Amino acid sequence: MRHEGFTAIHKKMLSLFVLASSLCSCLCRAEDSAMENIVTEKKAEESHRQDSADLLVFILLLTLTILTIWLFKHRRFRFLHETGLAMIYGLLVGVVLRYAIHVPSDMNNVTLSCNVNASPATLLVNVSGKFYEYTLKGEISGSEVNDIQDNEMLRKVTFDPEVFFNILLPPIIFHAGYSLKRRHFFRNLGSILAYAFVGTVVSCFIIGLLMYGCVMLMKQIGQLGGDFFFTDCLFFGAIVSATDPVTVLAIFNELQVDADLYALLFGESVLNDAVAVVLSSSIVGYQPEGDNSHTFEAMAMLKSFGIFLGVFSGSFALGVATGVVTFTKLRDFPLLETALFFLMSWSTFLLAEACGFTGVVAVLFCGMTQAHYTFNNLSPESQDRTKQLFELLNFLAENFIFSYMGLTLFTFKNHVFNPIFIVGAFLAVFLGRAANIYPLSFLLNLGRKYKISSNFQHMMMFAGLRGAMTFALSIRDTATYARQMMFSTTLLVVFFTVWICGGGTTQMLSCQKIRLIGPDGVERRSTKQESVWFFRIWYNFDHNYLKPILTHSGPPLTATLPACCGPLARCLTSPQAYENEEQLKDSDSDLILNDGDITLAYGDITVSTDATGAHTSGTPVGGVAVNSDEALDRELAFGDHELVIRGTRLVLPMDDSEPPLPLDSRRHRHKNETMS
Amino acid sequence: MRHEGFTAIHKKMLSLFVLASSLCSCLCRAEDSAMENIVTEKKAEESHRQDSADLLVFILLLTLTILTIWLFKHRRFRFLHETGLAMIYGLLVGVVLRYAIHVPSDMNNVTLSCNVNASPATLLVNVSGKFYEYTLKGEISGSEVNDIQDNEMLRKVTFDPEVFFNILLPPIIFHAGYSLKRRHFFRNLGSILAYAFVGTVVSCFIIGLLMYGCVMLMKQIGQLGGDFFFTDCLFFGAIVSATDPVTVLAIFNELQVDADLYALLFGESVLNDAVAVVLSSSIVGYQPEGDNSHTFEAMAMLKSFGIFLGVFSGSFALGVATGVVTFTKLRDFPLLETALFFLMSWSTFLLAEACGFTGVVAVLFCGMTQAHYTFNNLSPESQDRTKQLFELLNFLAENFIFSYMGLTLFTFKNHVFNPIFIVGAFLAVFLGRAANIYPLSFLLNLGRKYKISSNFQHMMMFAGLRGAMTFALSIRDTATYARQMMFSTTLLVVFFTVWICGGGTTQMLSCQKIRLIGPDGVERRSTKQESVWFFRIWYNFDHNYLKPILTHSGPPLTATLPACCGPLARCLTSPQAYENEEQLKDSDSDLILNDGDITLAYGDITVSTDATGAHTSGTPVGGVAVNSDEALDRELAFGDHELVIRGTRLVLPMDDSEPPLPLDSRRHRHKNETMS
Repeated sequence: MRHEGFTAIHKKMLSLFVLASSLCSCLCRAEDSAMENIVTEKKAEESHRQDSADLLVFILLLTLTILTIWLFKHRRFRFLHETGLAMIYGLLVGVVLRYAIHVPSDMNNVTLSCNVNASPATLLVNVSGKFYEYTLKGEISGSEVNDIQDNEMLRKVTFDPEVFFNILLPPIIFHAGYSLKRRHFFRNLGSILAYAFVGTVVSCFIIGLLMYGCVMLMKQIGQLGGDFFFTDCLFFGAIVSATDPVTVLAIFNELQVDADLYALLFGESVLNDAVAVVLSSSIVGYQPEGDNSHTFEAMAMLKSFGIFLGVFSGSFALGVATGVVTFTKLRDFPLLETALFFLMSWSTFLLAEACGFTGVVAVLFCGMTQAHYTFNNLSPESQDRTKQLFELLNFLAENFIFSYMGLTLFTFKNHVFNPIFIVGAFLAVFLGRAANIYPLSFLLNLGRKYKISSNFQHMMMFAGLRGAMTFALSIRDTATYARQMMFSTTLLVVFFTVWICGGGTTQMLSCQKIRLIGPDGVERRSTKQESVWFFRIWYNFDHNYLKPILTHSGPPLTATLPACCGPLARCLTSPQAYENEEQLKDSDSDLILNDGDITLAYGDITVSTDATGAHTSGTPVGGVAVNSDEALDRELAFGDHELVIRGTRLVLPMDDSEPPLPLDSRRHRHKNETMS
Repeated sequence: MRHEGFTAIHKKMLSLFVLASSLCSCLCRAEDSAMENIVTEKKAEESHRQDSADLLVFILLLTLTILTIWLFKHRRFRFLHETGLAMIYGLLVGVVLRYAIHVPSDMNNVTLSCNVNASPATLLVNVSGKFYEYTLKGEISGSEVNDIQDNEMLRKVTFDPEVFFNILLPPIIFHAGYSLKRRHFFRNLGSILAYAFVGTVVSCFIIGLLMYGCVMLMKQIGQLGGDFFFTDCLFFGAIVSATDPVTVLAIFNELQVDADLYALLFGESVLNDAVAVVLSSSIVGYQPEGDNSHTFEAMAMLKSFGIFLGVFSGSFALGVATGVVTFTKLRDFPLLETALFFLMSWSTFLLAEACGFTGVVAVLFCGMTQAHYTFNNLSPESQDRTKQLFELLNFLAENFIFSYMGLTLFTFKNHVFNPIFIVGAFLAVFLGRAANIYPLSFLLNLGRKYKISSNFQHMMMFAGLRGAMTFALSIRDTATYARQMMFSTTLLVVFFTVWICGGGTTQMLSCQKIRLIGPDGVERRSTKQESVWFFRIWYNFDHNYLKPILTHSGPPLTATLPACCGPLARCLTSPQAYENEEQLKDSDSDLILNDGDITLAYGDITVSTDATGAHTSGTPVGGVAVNSDEALDRELAFGDHELVIRGTRLVLPMDDSEPPLPLDSRRHRHKNETMS
């Protein structure tokens, strides 16, 4: 027996083991193993009970949150958003766990120490001839080795950070993609892409530089307790640059906010989540060759940029590909259809991760493509089921993350709160956001026919909440001093923005008079002037060729292809497209608002079958050959209606006394107001 | 540096570490830690990619299964059940993983061995002054230490057994409870309880005794390679005594099988899952005081019995309590309602586990109670949502378990296939099932007015499939030789019963002429004669008092309580009960078949409000005071309809050309057939 490896602290446990081992050695081999089994089983049982109790705490926390959300909605209390509420409950439970509960140090989690010279992922331990396998859980700081027993409980309620990335984030991001729909998004596509890509990168570098200055200052006055490289600062910039779609979606749906502003904010926040996650992983990958000094080097920078482009486009391609491929034909079996839809979406995530791309980004684009194509192929029942399923998953995951965020402020043991860094971070986040919004808006306004007005810009500045993605990115790695300081600071940033900015959005909106002032150019036909030329080309291609091939909606290919391609077209168009025509109109009308415009909207589709000589239904408005600005306009318009209606009904069905006005009537009202 | 602990096998890895550590030691401390971080990150990333790829294999397996199920349903191929299909796919993938794929031994999973004298749950490893935490994964047999690198991949696709118990099994069991509904179940309650409790215990002991004989024989001829105690035999008896509700539900819904037979089989298989899990844990807990000889002792036996009763009644009480407590009033917010319903069901499981009861059992009774009470309180949208959600979870979990079962036959490394034990087990399982069904049926027939006919008995004998629960119980602990042998044998038993018995059920049914022969006493009014007195008392209490208090359905208390209790009744009855009356009729009619009998069924409910002088609707049939055999009969009858209809629509919506006949018309057909 070799006890040299034991530290002095473990003497007590050691004596127990000596006792146990001497006890064991006097029993025969068989009884020994039987005894060991029982001890192991008891241990496992105890640990399992503890795990169940821990999980139960979270479930009850969620239950409490749901009940309070209901109460708030019921009483129309809107100064605190539900995610902010979840955080408060998490905070309270965290305080209780940290200060009120003391777990007696029990014998089941005895710890042993042995001196080896490496920390492999798997460790084989030889216990009197038997081999036990151990897996690496993580590093423990020297100061914690002393009270490892006391911290057992706190560490138990600390989840593996990968849980957030692999289990909780995907449904949230997928749901965002699945509910991000057409008209106003595509109308503002250029601006959204600019804010999300250029803006996020600008914000990341601004914050990174400012924080580096801050870190230099701290180093000067001796407040820095560990390494903090420039790449760390950039990493911090990347993770706090991502704005959160959750609160935007909830608050802006509830209030009848201008649709363009909504599209800008929601579109930006969804896409910049994707940008931030790829950006941060590229920065981690930024490592000058054969050098550990973390200095700036052009080659590594370029490589990093290459990684960014590669990962992003790979994830994008994968997400779109899966979304396009998943066209289910199991219409008669909604259960199978829903299960397949769910599994395919999940496998996009896994496939991307396995390929080294970013699953979250892939899932986002998968959701967007599936909403565009696959949704049309689903049976009406499956359309409802998938919507409801992802809505539920999103709701649970989101509230869980926010309560966990609150909880972790007290239960996470390695917090590094540094006042200078925190103040610097708040300032940097503010300036980074400003450097994203105002200059970009100015540049965009040069090209836009309908300008992004200054109150819109202020609103976008104000509503840049940080949320689930920022938290997940920062908790993913808290191994070093720099990362720990970032994590603590990030938590405070998220708390502040969700509580103050989230809670104040309503006030800010009325203060900026956004609800009352109709923006220029919200006319329904305005897409014609607004949309960019490449988008129009893509739209026509999509409408005439992709949709007919991939879904059962849209005009049959026989109508859109030139007459010479007739046989090919008939071959590619599924017979179902003609057969199911009646049915399809129904299932598609589920997508759009039932406001009497349906026949108009589908005029260009239904007339098309005339070309095959099969049957003509509906009133031809302009024939298939139109495919045109009108069709585009109408389709996007309905997509938008859906977004407004679905969002309101699903996310915050609060205004039951005052149902959300259809966009049209709202616009009329706007017009009347501006006219009077 | 101390290298004595390294075994000779790890020399190669050792040299790597020496290299790495010497490399590290010449770098300064900061760079060292930075380097280490990068190595750790790379390691973690690699491991994460591998995990994603492994999970992807399972997802694709499930996708393939779904597509094939669809094909089978489409082509009306019914000789192989979908669970059997999932197993076959799992087997194929297992073969590929085992024999076709060779992972080159990579540097990321280097293994290290150190000699210590115990195997604690947590291990602290001191690597040049830094502490790393390791957690116990399990024991590795001596022969495997050599090829641990080769087996890395196989072990990666091996799930933690607790995943089955804590993640996959609960939704399956909950769904079984949630879809187990009234009429025929309660009509046959006595018989079902007898089969499930007495029968399973009898079967467990018969199998245990037979296997002990078998083990003795093996010991005599020297075929036993390790310990095998009598308690192990009993444990084996307990785990293989549980029949599986999955296949019964699927197959019997598809065919129009006699409802009583269906109720007997389904009720028994649902309840005996609960009995088996508690029984097996009691047997594990059976440990004569201060004795490791595993001999029989009366006190320990009694204690074990006490554990059984305690755990079972505790779980039962907890499940029922949660089910009763969850009455949601969030009707305006279906999303919140569904989320709450889901969380409460899950917290039942966790609460039971944390209390030391059995979560699966608690979840079963929670599901049954929620179907009985909470379901009536949900808004129509939430009723659909919860049904669909649990249906989907059940479908995914079930198919996952069955494919994993197939996979594990090849990827599990510690199989012990012993021909004598296997043959003995098959014989014992057969005899155990026979000893359950035939003697009990004989005894039950003495008391039953409508006998369980012999072809029913043969059918019950034949349809005793073993499935998910048996697998989960046997994979839960495969640490000892005995358990490994049990696990391997159990796998074969499950394969055989699912493929042969499951696939042959259709043939067996037509062979036993069960589909054609109408059983005695399927008259609708027969509940009067059949049901046991205590059930009638409970039913009246439930109908008159519990339902009005807990749900918004049923007669208001003002009508059912004596006149003197008027004020109390008015206080307890929610005003909603009167207000929502119209709406409630609608939401309840969703539960039952729309065959014109609805007004009749709710006659006794709607008339009741007359007592309050509020409004009278519907045609009074017998008044509230009836509460009686007729009301009971009618309500149960409709519950049964629901079961048939829901089941057919949800689980196997195959007969689209020949929609399932409502029970009535079927009965009329039976009558006509027997009359002619």
